[in-house]
Amino acid sequence: MPTFHIEMFEGRSVEQKRELAAALTETTCKVLGVDAQSVDIIFTDVKTENWATAGKLWSDPR
Amino acid sequence: MPTFHIEMFEGRSVEQKRELAAALTETTCKVLGVDAQSVDIIFTDVKTENWATAGKLWSDPR
Amino acid sequence: MPTFHIEMFEGRSVEQKRELAAALTETTCKVLGVDAQSVDIIFTDVKTENWATAGKLWSDPR
Amino acid sequence: MPTFHIEMFEGRSVEQKRELAAALTETTCKVLGVDAQSVDIIFTDVKTENWATAGKLWSDPR
Amino acid sequence: MPTFHIEMFEGRSVEQKRELAAALTETTCKVLGVDAQSVDIIFTDVKTENWATAGKLWSDPR
Amino acid sequence: MPTFHIEMFEGRSVEQKRELAAALTETTCKVLGVDAQSVDIIFTDVKTENWATAGKLWSDPR
Repeated sequence: MPTFHIEMFEGRSVEQKRELAAALTETTCKVLGVDAQSVDIIFTDVKTENWATAGKLWSDPR
Repeated sequence: MPTFHIEMFEGRSVEQKRELAAALTETTCKVLGVDAQSVDIIFTDVKTENWATAGKLWSDPR
Repeated sequence: MPTFHIEMFEGRSVEQKRELAAALTETTCKVLGVDAQSVDIIFTDVKTENWATAGKLWSDPR
Repeated sequence: MPTFHIEMFEGRSVEQKRELAAALTETTCKVLGVDAQSVDIIFTDVKTENWATAGKLWSDPR
Repeated sequence: MPTFHIEMFEGRSVEQKRELAAALTETTCKVLGVDAQSVDIIFTDVKTENWATAGKLWSDPR
Repeated sequence: MPTFHIEMFEGRSVEQKRELAAALTETTCKVLGVDAQSVDIIFTDVKTENWATAGKLWSDPR
C-alpha cells in the first residue's frame, strides 16, 4: 500500500522516471516485504520558479 | 473544513470535474454534517508518464 | 486510479469514515466510469491547533 | 526543516513568488528560530477549473 | 484561496503556531492582494524518525 | 532537490524506515545524478481506519 509522491525539478526524461520507478519499487518491496502491485509512485515535475530554498527561487541566480 | 486533494489521470473534462465536485460535496455534507461552504476540492491532473504502479509507468504497455 | 487525500478536523468516528469512503467511491465510479478497485482514499485527522483560517488557529476562540 | 507547499490559483507572476518566498522565509526563521537554509517552499499553480468550493468550480460563474 | 501545508519537526508550541499562522497570513495578503479569510494554513508535526535527509533519519546521530 | 512523501500503514519499525531511507536515497542519487544531501524523505504512518480501497476501510474485514 505504500504510496510515493516525488517532487523534483522538471526536465527529467521519461526514461529516468521509468528506471527510478522500477528501482524504488524493487527496493521498497525488499525492505518492507510488500507486493510490487501495492506500490504506487506519483511524480510531480516542479518548475524552478516554483521552488525556493532559503527564501530564493531556484530560477534566480545563486 | 474538509479539504480534498484528488489525483487522477489527465484527460477528464471540465464537465466531469464539475459533476464530481458537486456530487462529492453533497455526499460529504450529508455524512459529516458540515456546510457546503466549508468543503474545498482540488483536482490534480497526472500524466500517465508520472504515475507508476508495480514499478511500471502507466504510459508504458502493460 | 483516482487517489483522494481528505483532511478534516479530528473527531470523526470510524463509522463516519466508513460511510464517507463508501459513498465517495460510489460517486466517483459513477461520474468517472472507473472501477471501485482503482479508488484509494486516505483520511488525515487534523487537530484544531494545526489548522488556521484568516491567520487564526481553529483551537482559538473566534 | 520546515517545508511549505502553497497552492494558489495560477496567474501569479514570478516577481510575486519571489517576494512571497523571501518574506515567508524571513517570517518563519524569526518565529521558529530556524536557519533560512532549512526552509523549502514549493508553489503549485492551480487552474480555476481544478478547484471547487461549496461544490462549484472556480471557473464557473458564482 | 492560497492553501498552505507546512511540515516541520514536532515540538513547536501552540503559541509558535499561532504567531506563525498570523504572520504568514498577513504577509501573504500583502504580497498577493488576497483577503485573509481566503488563506488556510495546515501544519503537520513530523517526528524526527519520519524525516530523512541524505538517506539518514533525523532521529539518528549526525 | 527531490522530496519524497511516502504514506504507508503504521507499524513499520524505525529500523525499516532507516533502511528504506538509505536505500531509496542511494537509488535516487544513482538514477538522477543528484547529491544525497538534496534528497529529503518524509514518511507518513497511516492507520488502517484512515485508508480505504474500493470504498472499504482497511480496518474492516475483506
